[in-house]
Amino acid sequence: MAQLPKEGPQDRLASWLADDMAAVNALIRDRMASEHAPRIPEVTAHLIEAGGKRLRPMLTLAAARLCGYAGADHQKLAATVEFIHTATLLHDDVVDESARRRGRPTANLLWDNKSSVLVGDYLFARSFQLMVETGSLRVLDILANASAVIAEGEVLQLTAAQDLATTEDTYLKVIRGKTAALFSAATEVGGVIAGVPEEQVQALHTYGDALGIAFQIADDLLDYGGSSASIGKNTGDDFRERKLTLPVIKAVAKADAEERTFWLRVIEKGDQREGDLQQALALMARHGAMEAARDQALDWSAKARTALKALPDHPLRGMLSELAAYVVSRIS
Amino acid sequence: MAQLPKEGPQDRLASWLADDMAAVNALIRDRMASEHAPRIPEVTAHLIEAGGKRLRPMLTLAAARLCGYAGADHQKLAATVEFIHTATLLHDDVVDESARRRGRPTANLLWDNKSSVLVGDYLFARSFQLMVETGSLRVLDILANASAVIAEGEVLQLTAAQDLATTEDTYLKVIRGKTAALFSAATEVGGVIAGVPEEQVQALHTYGDALGIAFQIADDLLDYGGSSASIGKNTGDDFRERKLTLPVIKAVAKADAEERTFWLRVIEKGDQREGDLQQALALMARHGAMEAARDQALDWSAKARTALKALPDHPLRGMLSELAAYVVSRIS
Repeated sequence: MAQLPKEGPQDRLASWLADDMAAVNALIRDRMASEHAPRIPEVTAHLIEAGGKRLRPMLTLAAARLCGYAGADHQKLAATVEFIHTATLLHDDVVDESARRRGRPTANLLWDNKSSVLVGDYLFARSFQLMVETGSLRVLDILANASAVIAEGEVLQLTAAQDLATTEDTYLKVIRGKTAALFSAATEVGGVIAGVPEEQVQALHTYGDALGIAFQIADDLLDYGGSSASIGKNTGDDFRERKLTLPVIKAVAKADAEERTFWLRVIEKGDQREGDLQQALALMARHGAMEAARDQALDWSAKARTALKALPDHPLRGMLSELAAYVVSRIS
Repeated sequence: MAQLPKEGPQDRLASWLADDMAAVNALIRDRMASEHAPRIPEVTAHLIEAGGKRLRPMLTLAAARLCGYAGADHQKLAATVEFIHTATLLHDDVVDESARRRGRPTANLLWDNKSSVLVGDYLFARSFQLMVETGSLRVLDILANASAVIAEGEVLQLTAAQDLATTEDTYLKVIRGKTAALFSAATEVGGVIAGVPEEQVQALHTYGDALGIAFQIADDLLDYGGSSASIGKNTGDDFRERKLTLPVIKAVAKADAEERTFWLRVIEKGDQREGDLQQALALMARHGAMEAARDQALDWSAKARTALKALPDHPLRGMLSELAAYVVSRIS
């Protein structure tokens, strides 16, 4: 999953929310402990302390504070969101048979798949306990629905992989599950806990959803070198894994018979040879697939910023707006 | 995980609760569907339609009806409990690398580990949605706590396996996670949804907990042939997998130096030879380990039956009492 580059609006968010984040980090450390099974904090700490950006819990904190919330339950919800995210990463690494995450060997490699599956389950259960503590059925409903979208998206990604018939609609469902569903739940619950009017809750949902989609499309584009389609050292991982991401789906949709034969060979049959990545990039360029995907990411980013207009005027609102611009700055 | 033999009090429960169970089965079929990812119902149906006894959802239905509940939310809770159970089975089979479950090849073998992990996650999320629909924070709290105990118990089992230092206290935590936590949550939420007094809710919890523990100790004893310690065709699976179940823990606690060397070799080092199972059975017999474990199972069964006295006089109460006697009838 994507990492944002260093320095940017998320650093300003982190400064503004430093006290809240310190409380969230303490809560995470406290709740990931297990008196009886030391393997649990070992595995969790390995991943959590590797220093992800904590983008998702920051979205919850920012949404709640922006809406004038003065209590402490938003910290529990931020920790909830980070636990759900960490649990999905642990399970993803088993599913993808990944070896590295956040620059370190993955838990499934350091311990085993069993530990990753079960510790992921434990973190889901802990996140569930944390959200129940807030006593808000609305929050529980939002997070339950997000959990279902996440899991369904993951299964969909599994079955859509290597299938040239994958549509843009399916792609959108996959990336909602992979990224946007937790982003939108993270922002929405911040508004719900603050008790703002329905219109603002909906705006927070729309912001998180659009931000997540823009973020993931940009990430998928960067895997092919961004809109410039230049080949860098990490270019083409998705191609080698035969993933149907947006630029490929767009190029396949416009493919003539000969091009289709190429895509069938490299994606469905998985018969990839020297020079195939360059050929894929050339076909995407021929059909303007990178530009079209980039334009879609920019549209989602704009949608995210527009949604913020329904929310109170606040320095955090400015930072969230910058964040939406920032996630697509790498490709525009 | 254990299967009860055919015919018994659970069949009388199933008859009495037939209408409720039909509604639960319809709910399960409806909620395991996924419009977008057909892999989900395929995997789930494979397991759910293999015909487990549906013991856990029946416990919820029986508890609610016994307490005079006349609504329909107990059906949602029964489906919730079955989804949680099915999700843990899917994840267990990945963790244990199992090949068969309920007489059929496991999902991880028919599809892959990925599908088992992700479909399990999906069922957890669906169970979460179902319980939120009941609108009871108390129910959510009980099921969140049970989920944490289940996951923690599974991790504990993983790390305690092959460790001769495992105590009876750890064993109890493991089997609570494996069996009793979901049994006790299943019965307790039935009482909560019926709105009975706290004392009866607590009695339902105690019943489910003690029933689950008795059930699991009996199951672990049967793996060594029951209290008779005769060798049947399935005897010794736990021994071969080097699991620290109650009779082994008891025999190890009383081992002399020579016996300890034996246990170290077969359990910790995993160096098992022809005749070792017979030798293990002989050592258990020498120290009365099977009888002591059986007595503990009988005590838990009695505790379960005693707890029922706090509940209303009702035919279902009689069936639950018979069930508690029945789960240990195989070893007494």
